[in-house]
Amino acid sequence: MRILLTNDDGIHAPGLRALRLELMKLGEVVVVAPATEQSAVGHSITLSTPLVVQQVFDDAREFLGWAVEGRPADCVKLALLELLPEPPDVIVSGLNAGSNAGINVLYSGTVAAAIEGAFFRQTSFACSLGYSKAIPQDFQAGSELAQRVIAQVLARNPERGTLFNVNIPSLEKPPLGVRIVPQNAAPYSEKFDRRIDPRGRVYFWSMPDFGCPEPHPDTDETALREGYITVTPLQFDLTHSRQLAAMNDWQLRV
Amino acid sequence: MRILLTNDDGIHAPGLRALRLELMKLGEVVVVAPATEQSAVGHSITLSTPLVVQQVFDDAREFLGWAVEGRPADCVKLALLELLPEPPDVIVSGLNAGSNAGINVLYSGTVAAAIEGAFFRQTSFACSLGYSKAIPQDFQAGSELAQRVIAQVLARNPERGTLFNVNIPSLEKPPLGVRIVPQNAAPYSEKFDRRIDPRGRVYFWSMPDFGCPEPHPDTDETALREGYITVTPLQFDLTHSRQLAAMNDWQLRV
Repeated sequence: MRILLTNDDGIHAPGLRALRLELMKLGEVVVVAPATEQSAVGHSITLSTPLVVQQVFDDAREFLGWAVEGRPADCVKLALLELLPEPPDVIVSGLNAGSNAGINVLYSGTVAAAIEGAFFRQTSFACSLGYSKAIPQDFQAGSELAQRVIAQVLARNPERGTLFNVNIPSLEKPPLGVRIVPQNAAPYSEKFDRRIDPRGRVYFWSMPDFGCPEPHPDTDETALREGYITVTPLQFDLTHSRQLAAMNDWQLRV
Repeated sequence: MRILLTNDDGIHAPGLRALRLELMKLGEVVVVAPATEQSAVGHSITLSTPLVVQQVFDDAREFLGWAVEGRPADCVKLALLELLPEPPDVIVSGLNAGSNAGINVLYSGTVAAAIEGAFFRQTSFACSLGYSKAIPQDFQAGSELAQRVIAQVLARNPERGTLFNVNIPSLEKPPLGVRIVPQNAAPYSEKFDRRIDPRGRVYFWSMPDFGCPEPHPDTDETALREGYITVTPLQFDLTHSRQLAAMNDWQLRV
């Protein structure tokens, strides 16, 4: 099995290194990942600047893949259209430092890379590891869990092009199991800190205590908090079908 | 009616200026928009750098709103949480220079700003004007058409928080009418141009002839090509419900 591995934390991120070693148990892994950190870039792509690409080797001087001076979605495009000699069997993005559940999936470069894979009708996984203040992130243990989930999902032979968002909880305690759940759509509470710079200009910092005060039950957000690994199948047709049907008799005119 | 106007082409873009004048026919308009162009940034947000904000005035020295050194989604967050004295009745993003149909909605900063509005349960519109090599873009005519569509949609009293993606064709010819259609989900064909820099590094340019060779019929993509204005209701729960149901009996283990 040929696996394309990418991420949004950059090609030198510990989460990618750990997940690569785990995925090598499942097949041949080639990395095409951003040269530098690209968190919260969402589904950005690079149109107006050149995408510089450089080969990267691992500590054993084995070929690791390519570093791209671009976004996660650029990496997937370049991998599939230019860099890989053959299309991969599966695309994996991660292991991200921090969970990507609820509406955060729309901000996430990790998830955007997997969505980009699905645009090309490739089976794709986004994998993220929750963060806890209590312990340093254990990317090795998180990657092993992610790999086991990926292997079990692939053993079910999902239709080509299916897209899965996998979240591993923070591993303060062993996970309680795996739950297959929808994305939480409840709003987040977020805050800014207003400051004045030495030149008198107003600026704001986004505050890190970004949270979802009332997640919908039985979603990725709640299952993660309870200590489960979550798997959420995603799609990229944003059409609101119920609203579309309700608009059936609207006669809009120019 | 209080209207928050934003975009991804930047606060000085002609599309925003033209749409502002049109929306002033419907109510009071305040602009909170990126200080500089932010095309194809998708749903990026700014976490690690400060969001500098400056007041901007129009040519008649009337208060226009705030320029934000950030992404379209940052502008909506700051407007709703910090800058506006009262919540708006409607959020409008545009008028974008170039259409945002099909899977392009996921790359689009214009659409991301409207999705961000919907995260806050605000009724939101993304408005885009198609591009044609034959004529310069007529933002004034495009904005008038967008305003007429927005007014008609609001007259239907959509549920608070509903999100609409409006595309105006390139206006080489008068539009044939307004169609309410789903997002096209068919793949795009895209290409890169491979080059070598003076230092021997490989780089790629994304090629501009990005297109959808086989759009699904009766979608935003096809209706736009036929010369219609399109209105597509969107939502941001990416859960693939059919796949989720198919996974009901999958027993995944840690």
